Amino acid sequence: MKAGYIGLGAMGAPMARNLARAGLLAAVWNRSPAKADALAAELGVAAAADPAALAAAVDVAFLCVSADNDVLAMVEAMSAGIRPGSVVVDCSTVGSDTARRVAALLADRGAAFLDAPVSGGVEGARKGTLAMMVGGEAGVLETVLPVLRAVAARIVHIGPVGAGQGCKAVNQIMAAGIAQAVTEALAFGQAMDLPMDKVIEVVSGGAAGNWFLDHRGRTMVAGTFQPGFKLGLHHKDLLICRESAEKLGVSVPVTEQTIGEYARLMAEGYGDEDISALYRLKSR
Amino acid sequence: MKAGYIGLGAMGAPMARNLARAGLLAAVWNRSPAKADALAAELGVAAAADPAALAAAVDVAFLCVSADNDVLAMVEAMSAGIRPGSVVVDCSTVGSDTARRVAALLADRGAAFLDAPVSGGVEGARKGTLAMMVGGEAGVLETVLPVLRAVAARIVHIGPVGAGQGCKAVNQIMAAGIAQAVTEALAFGQAMDLPMDKVIEVVSGGAAGNWFLDHRGRTMVAGTFQPGFKLGLHHKDLLICRESAEKLGVSVPVTEQTIGEYARLMAEGYGDEDISALYRLKSR
Repeated sequence: MKAGYIGLGAMGAPMARNLARAGLLAAVWNRSPAKADALAAELGVAAAADPAALAAAVDVAFLCVSADNDVLAMVEAMSAGIRPGSVVVDCSTVGSDTARRVAALLADRGAAFLDAPVSGGVEGARKGTLAMMVGGEAGVLETVLPVLRAVAARIVHIGPVGAGQGCKAVNQIMAAGIAQAVTEALAFGQAMDLPMDKVIEVVSGGAAGNWFLDHRGRTMVAGTFQPGFKLGLHHKDLLICRESAEKLGVSVPVTEQTIGEYARLMAEGYGDEDISALYRLKSR
Repeated sequence: MKAGYIGLGAMGAPMARNLARAGLLAAVWNRSPAKADALAAELGVAAAADPAALAAAVDVAFLCVSADNDVLAMVEAMSAGIRPGSVVVDCSTVGSDTARRVAALLADRGAAFLDAPVSGGVEGARKGTLAMMVGGEAGVLETVLPVLRAVAARIVHIGPVGAGQGCKAVNQIMAAGIAQAVTEALAFGQAMDLPMDKVIEVVSGGAAGNWFLDHRGRTMVAGTFQPGFKLGLHHKDLLICRESAEKLGVSVPVTEQTIGEYARLMAEGYGDEDISALYRLKSR
């Protein structure tokens, strides 16, 4: 099975590398061509002329772009080249509605769709240890599972198309709350003048232990906020979550608080920093 | 070195069992004697007549009780029996001021003190895998380290007496925020009608992964809230944290929110449930 990758950002590029390592990658494409050319040269694969050419050359086309409109535009652009029987796997974080709309577009061309957003940070993308939450038909997932295993360590079928994005919304709400938890607690510790490296070491071994503390705790208290996961992107995801929550009649106060605080940081020019930059507000 | 254990609750009893397994436990004492008698019989150790008798029989006396006043009262009660050169290790979660006060009392009797609160839940206490945050003199810690290793997997010296409790406050603030994060996110997922076992499985493998989700996620969505860690005790801890935060001039909004919600649950009779009972409010 030959795979292609569209969207070579912080997550997409390392995922493409893992597909290449597994001998599965045939082609890449990216909106800014320089990135695609460089990665294609590095990996010895084709830099497709356009999304349609990529679609025509592969059995499984991965997508990892930023927002709902990007996904829709990309699938439109692939459309002319889509091969019947092929599968599009979208690793972007977008709404369930977008996933269902794209699946219908692809069904018209005889192709299948999986919404397969991922979590695990740039580290997980690099190591191929991402968690992948999949929406779509079980049979389609089974077909492409050997390919997905090249990029993700934990692959779970959540339900029909859109369910993967629903699960990702749960993930993003939880990630927002954990960012609140860790930044509030570490800012308190720093105000107490505790030796924060030791605090992080011991707290991560107990009942408050979490991925974010392990991977962002030390850099956060040192005042460095390299992404990682860009705050502006998480803000975008949380707006999707808030909209869903409103429709469901569920209250998400910690998410609301985070949206407001991210907006403040974005206004101050920190939107391209890692979400751990939330610490900037807590430690003032 | 012979150890004794005072306070045989949800955390104390399994810690005493691990000390016994390591051949270190000589005596136990508990406010309600039935518990002490039963555990002493089970482990083949002495049930001390009173705290002073326990203190007189051991080199290292562990304490694990609920609140500041309990720690002070217990050290008073031990006082007559305290052996010069012995060490009192307090695993309770109390204020740093209490730790310093107790250390001074014990110094007058020629004994040393470590504040050594723990985290890792009843599971960690049972398995001997607790994280222990220690305040006190490095030399004293070194002396009792072989004993502490029977109950904890990660033992970190944070600083002078009181620093262990400062670190525990950081831990409890983070635990409160994580409880908010996980309950808000899972309630949102349940409102979306997602298959929550699958959601928990995949989310725990990504960047939102955390101990609380792993250990309390499934029971929470199933509507069971066996402690674990009693909500009323965490509420008590968070009041200590809030007081410290006020003194430091640090704002802890997620902690504030949690204190209010715990109080509401306690008023409804849920104070003896696990802290995951916060889910009751989020899923209404």
